[in-house]
Amino acid sequence: MRVAVFGASGYTGLELLRIVLRHPKLELAVATSEQREGIAVGEAFPALRGLVDLRFERADVASIASRVDVAFTALPHAASAAVVGELRKAGVTTLDLSADFRLNDPQQYAEWYGKHGAPEIFGKAVYGMPELHREAIRATDFVAAPGCYPTSVLIPLTPFLKRGLVAPTPILVDSKSGVSGAGRKADVAFLFAEIDESCNAYKVGGAHRHVPEIEQEASLAAGKPVCISFVPHLLPTIRGINTTIFLQPTQKFSTADALAVLREAYANEPFVRVLPEGETPKLQSIRGSNFCDVGAVVDPRSGALILLSAIDNLVKGSGGQAVQCLNLMRGFDERTGLLEAPLIP
Amino acid sequence: MRVAVFGASGYTGLELLRIVLRHPKLELAVATSEQREGIAVGEAFPALRGLVDLRFERADVASIASRVDVAFTALPHAASAAVVGELRKAGVTTLDLSADFRLNDPQQYAEWYGKHGAPEIFGKAVYGMPELHREAIRATDFVAAPGCYPTSVLIPLTPFLKRGLVAPTPILVDSKSGVSGAGRKADVAFLFAEIDESCNAYKVGGAHRHVPEIEQEASLAAGKPVCISFVPHLLPTIRGINTTIFLQPTQKFSTADALAVLREAYANEPFVRVLPEGETPKLQSIRGSNFCDVGAVVDPRSGALILLSAIDNLVKGSGGQAVQCLNLMRGFDERTGLLEAPLIP
Amino acid sequence: MRVAVFGASGYTGLELLRIVLRHPKLELAVATSEQREGIAVGEAFPALRGLVDLRFERADVASIASRVDVAFTALPHAASAAVVGELRKAGVTTLDLSADFRLNDPQQYAEWYGKHGAPEIFGKAVYGMPELHREAIRATDFVAAPGCYPTSVLIPLTPFLKRGLVAPTPILVDSKSGVSGAGRKADVAFLFAEIDESCNAYKVGGAHRHVPEIEQEASLAAGKPVCISFVPHLLPTIRGINTTIFLQPTQKFSTADALAVLREAYANEPFVRVLPEGETPKLQSIRGSNFCDVGAVVDPRSGALILLSAIDNLVKGSGGQAVQCLNLMRGFDERTGLLEAPLIP
Amino acid sequence: MRVAVFGASGYTGLELLRIVLRHPKLELAVATSEQREGIAVGEAFPALRGLVDLRFERADVASIASRVDVAFTALPHAASAAVVGELRKAGVTTLDLSADFRLNDPQQYAEWYGKHGAPEIFGKAVYGMPELHREAIRATDFVAAPGCYPTSVLIPLTPFLKRGLVAPTPILVDSKSGVSGAGRKADVAFLFAEIDESCNAYKVGGAHRHVPEIEQEASLAAGKPVCISFVPHLLPTIRGINTTIFLQPTQKFSTADALAVLREAYANEPFVRVLPEGETPKLQSIRGSNFCDVGAVVDPRSGALILLSAIDNLVKGSGGQAVQCLNLMRGFDERTGLLEAPLIP
Repeated sequence: MRVAVFGASGYTGLELLRIVLRHPKLELAVATSEQREGIAVGEAFPALRGLVDLRFERADVASIASRVDVAFTALPHAASAAVVGELRKAGVTTLDLSADFRLNDPQQYAEWYGKHGAPEIFGKAVYGMPELHREAIRATDFVAAPGCYPTSVLIPLTPFLKRGLVAPTPILVDSKSGVSGAGRKADVAFLFAEIDESCNAYKVGGAHRHVPEIEQEASLAAGKPVCISFVPHLLPTIRGINTTIFLQPTQKFSTADALAVLREAYANEPFVRVLPEGETPKLQSIRGSNFCDVGAVVDPRSGALILLSAIDNLVKGSGGQAVQCLNLMRGFDERTGLLEAPLIP
Repeated sequence: MRVAVFGASGYTGLELLRIVLRHPKLELAVATSEQREGIAVGEAFPALRGLVDLRFERADVASIASRVDVAFTALPHAASAAVVGELRKAGVTTLDLSADFRLNDPQQYAEWYGKHGAPEIFGKAVYGMPELHREAIRATDFVAAPGCYPTSVLIPLTPFLKRGLVAPTPILVDSKSGVSGAGRKADVAFLFAEIDESCNAYKVGGAHRHVPEIEQEASLAAGKPVCISFVPHLLPTIRGINTTIFLQPTQKFSTADALAVLREAYANEPFVRVLPEGETPKLQSIRGSNFCDVGAVVDPRSGALILLSAIDNLVKGSGGQAVQCLNLMRGFDERTGLLEAPLIP
Repeated sequence: MRVAVFGASGYTGLELLRIVLRHPKLELAVATSEQREGIAVGEAFPALRGLVDLRFERADVASIASRVDVAFTALPHAASAAVVGELRKAGVTTLDLSADFRLNDPQQYAEWYGKHGAPEIFGKAVYGMPELHREAIRATDFVAAPGCYPTSVLIPLTPFLKRGLVAPTPILVDSKSGVSGAGRKADVAFLFAEIDESCNAYKVGGAHRHVPEIEQEASLAAGKPVCISFVPHLLPTIRGINTTIFLQPTQKFSTADALAVLREAYANEPFVRVLPEGETPKLQSIRGSNFCDVGAVVDPRSGALILLSAIDNLVKGSGGQAVQCLNLMRGFDERTGLLEAPLIP
Repeated sequence: MRVAVFGASGYTGLELLRIVLRHPKLELAVATSEQREGIAVGEAFPALRGLVDLRFERADVASIASRVDVAFTALPHAASAAVVGELRKAGVTTLDLSADFRLNDPQQYAEWYGKHGAPEIFGKAVYGMPELHREAIRATDFVAAPGCYPTSVLIPLTPFLKRGLVAPTPILVDSKSGVSGAGRKADVAFLFAEIDESCNAYKVGGAHRHVPEIEQEASLAAGKPVCISFVPHLLPTIRGINTTIFLQPTQKFSTADALAVLREAYANEPFVRVLPEGETPKLQSIRGSNFCDVGAVVDPRSGALILLSAIDNLVKGSGGQAVQCLNLMRGFDERTGLLEAPLIP
């Protein structure tokens, strides 16, 4: 199956190249980059020298659509929608990794992102988290891959919402993300000398664009509106998201009970690992892999239920989850190309 | 004033050496280390070569007491109490940086730490956080320097508890600490190859030994029992603690109101910097310094009040705060030896 | 093909697990660890949870030999030789990753490492660097996998020695290694707080145990004795070795000439990438992969030839190169299981 | 003494602020920044909040000259010369931290940097390395502060050149620098995600602009032309330079002899620490301080003399050394404001 990666010179795009290259059923046919047009992929990114025999090309859908079966779009929002619109018209199976097709409510989109680049297909994509929407993903040829923070929050959280075990408001979420989440762009704030040995919260409360996405899917799971207070932090790591969620149970239960909820929900999930009692998710344990590790603790003193998760933002939080969706869409074993051991140490 | 540092070869002890060396009123007279006894300080720690002309000696209080005016004890708990007991008998002004004299309730101590090394003086020290107990510190010659996590939590939190502006239970705290907090000990878990590019929670809920200390001081501030759910995380940094606290206000207020509470509480504090609206505390901005930066956000959607802080765990969270106390105890300008600019970048 | 990894809980052993798991022709049958005997691999190393269904066992060759076709031994020197001795007697194909069988001269071994654990088979292994000894590797069932520093030095260096293009003495080598090279052992010197933001040389000149190994293979390539001055440095990275070599050419040549020498030598090598003029090897570009990137510059002012290389010490410098050898020994495509894209970023 | 820092919002400028703030004889009167004009220093750089009560202003020498006694210029080359030219006309004592006045030969300047911004005063500054030019520094009011790499090379190297103990050509230098050396500028190459866990050489051989500066001062020390092959590397650290130099002695000597040369040369230097045999300079031991640690090893096998050094590029390699010069120029104790313990850990 021939694959195009649009926006292949960003961190998300590069990760897609890495995963597509090892996927036995996929062949990388096109990689686009406006800035690097005409340059060999292995020249622009020496890590890929000898592995990719392509030159970056412009995102010219008319020319590309006929050469590929599947397109991953890893472009900035708005730009992505425009390309996706053309791809859909051309009948290309599309997995969009931007935020353009994740929300269901066009007004929410307008509020958080502005004018949409392809309003005619807004709302048509399936939210590409197999743990929530596996059957719909199997049946579609248009997926919106979830954001990295939402993935790290929704996997531990939704089983409790679905079963009504926790109050839906307020759900307090403290996330910590590696810097690759900010993308590969020249910005003083993300220089090594600014980030190493540092850490800080940003866009505190309801200010981060991932909030409406988390609330949308959490509310769907709960069957009623959920309100999240979300505090993202910047970690001095390249990859990885650690999320800690504070909840008030609607009934008394123990740590063992909480873990049982997670274990039951994810018994058959190939990429969710529910940790045993006493163990906490570590970035080290999922680095470079598609796993989401989850844990739970009930603090009997305060009654709080504390959920914990760890993902690699570029794999389960982005390119890996998108390929997991594609595996489902095409009837491959869902794990194909994704069952690598994490890079330890 | 001649100073002894007991346990001078651990990270806390080394930081005390660094601060004492630049303090114009203090002279380092004794540095103890069991493992390094007899070795020149600058030989054991080449960073200090040329700056310290002492050899490490054994913690022999009988021999040391007569040579110093002040002792900082940075020993493991229990061991510290034994040394402190002797120092107190010998009439030496003592600032203990272990956990041995922070708690008021001997049963709490027994539960969390076991048998106490000097029960006869348990409860005699003043909890050495000037922002909470300045006058008592001025009047004592025995201080228990607070833990690093408690400092990062209590400074942003107590003004709201004192004024009854937030519900006292549950208070949800998510802290992230650099690895020096674990001390200078051979342990595979803290190897560079285990920590870099990683992050994880540990001792989740009510399991960390700093919980009773936080609750004790928070309850004193609130005038009623406070219950904390505490989730500490390990950061891939050497120094620094970032803390995020989620609270439910007892009445409606805005971010500006919350910041006004902090600004009023800390108007005259030399080391607490209340950040303007929209700014968040960064480890970079306090590295190597005695500052505690604090911020606040009210999320109008959920109603949650979110408090944020950043300290250097070895300075304001340990040795710096102890020296700030000593300045008060001896009537020096409280800032003496502590008003250094942070190390940026 | 059933595989045993001896010493599977060290960093080298863990990397072998990671590579064996993704190798389509290998099945991990046994993993030994003295300290973790009886513990499930995925419990001891949560990164491997769900990927390995084995418990660590003792290194009992009598019990293990009949259950496997191939053994990788990643044990400390001396201990490794003893196990290898038994494995050879039992007829098991063996790839030893310790230093026990790399040297040809027993006196050199005695001088650098002490008493040998299996003198009867000393000198019987093939030095497992395919770029130097491919045919001998194909023909053997006993390989000594090279050290990480030697790999990073010999790949750029030997083509020039073979052709007599550089003076054989002194060859000046400056290497920089990530901390995983020191192994997974409790040692204060390798704590995160000691290593991050630091860097230092160690065992300067002729003091590092890899010196005799480099000189042995360099001398074989040159056809005459070669003397290396070697300065290893500790980098604040988990993985990777960067090596810079200073040489005096025996005749005048240009950067382009030097690169042509490398390109000719490695035209058919699957894992050596000769960089174009003006580009230098980066750890980022080989992280997690079996590639060795090499570059060259001639400084026309001093006449010095400067060679540069980058490898991942745990892959091409250890487990990856061993698997590359096994592929040759068993007639698989040499790249099987090893042609992954590096982890960027 | 009132001080102006020109270019105060770059890393060098910020470090000057940090040092000036703790210097008991200096008062920060002016800080310029084109980009931040009008913004309070503590607002632009929260680390300095509460420590500096100034707003950044434009580099308007006419307005500034009358308000200060001393100016540090930390501007890009060419821009710096223009400002320095005006400052000199206005009679202000000037310490320039750019490359504009380090070279003695205008043709060398033109070749490496282009057109000079103040040719009328080219060659008038004293090269500000007290270890080489203390008396000239005492007598001048115009200093060119040395580059960071040159400082790390010249301190260990010049004692051997002065005594003719080593061949002047080729001198092979391998340096490793933290990323702050690249300045505070938006550049994808210096993002955290590009630098962490990586390392690479750049501008290999004779391509780095510090080469002519090193050769100029090394040749002066040797009394004859010296040729350097220089290989700088980028380290994943914020601060620090580690340099390793390979030399051929002109006569046989031992490690002890080499260290004796260094010890004799630097017996009275307040900031050069000659390490004992067997110890190597570490970035950790000089972080944030003005020390230059140096070591030496003679490899008896190859005969090579290997010199090692470590400095903090922003202190001894930049702002600290400039303040050391100012102390000399004004007759203060040379150590004033500079004798801080390094930040360990």
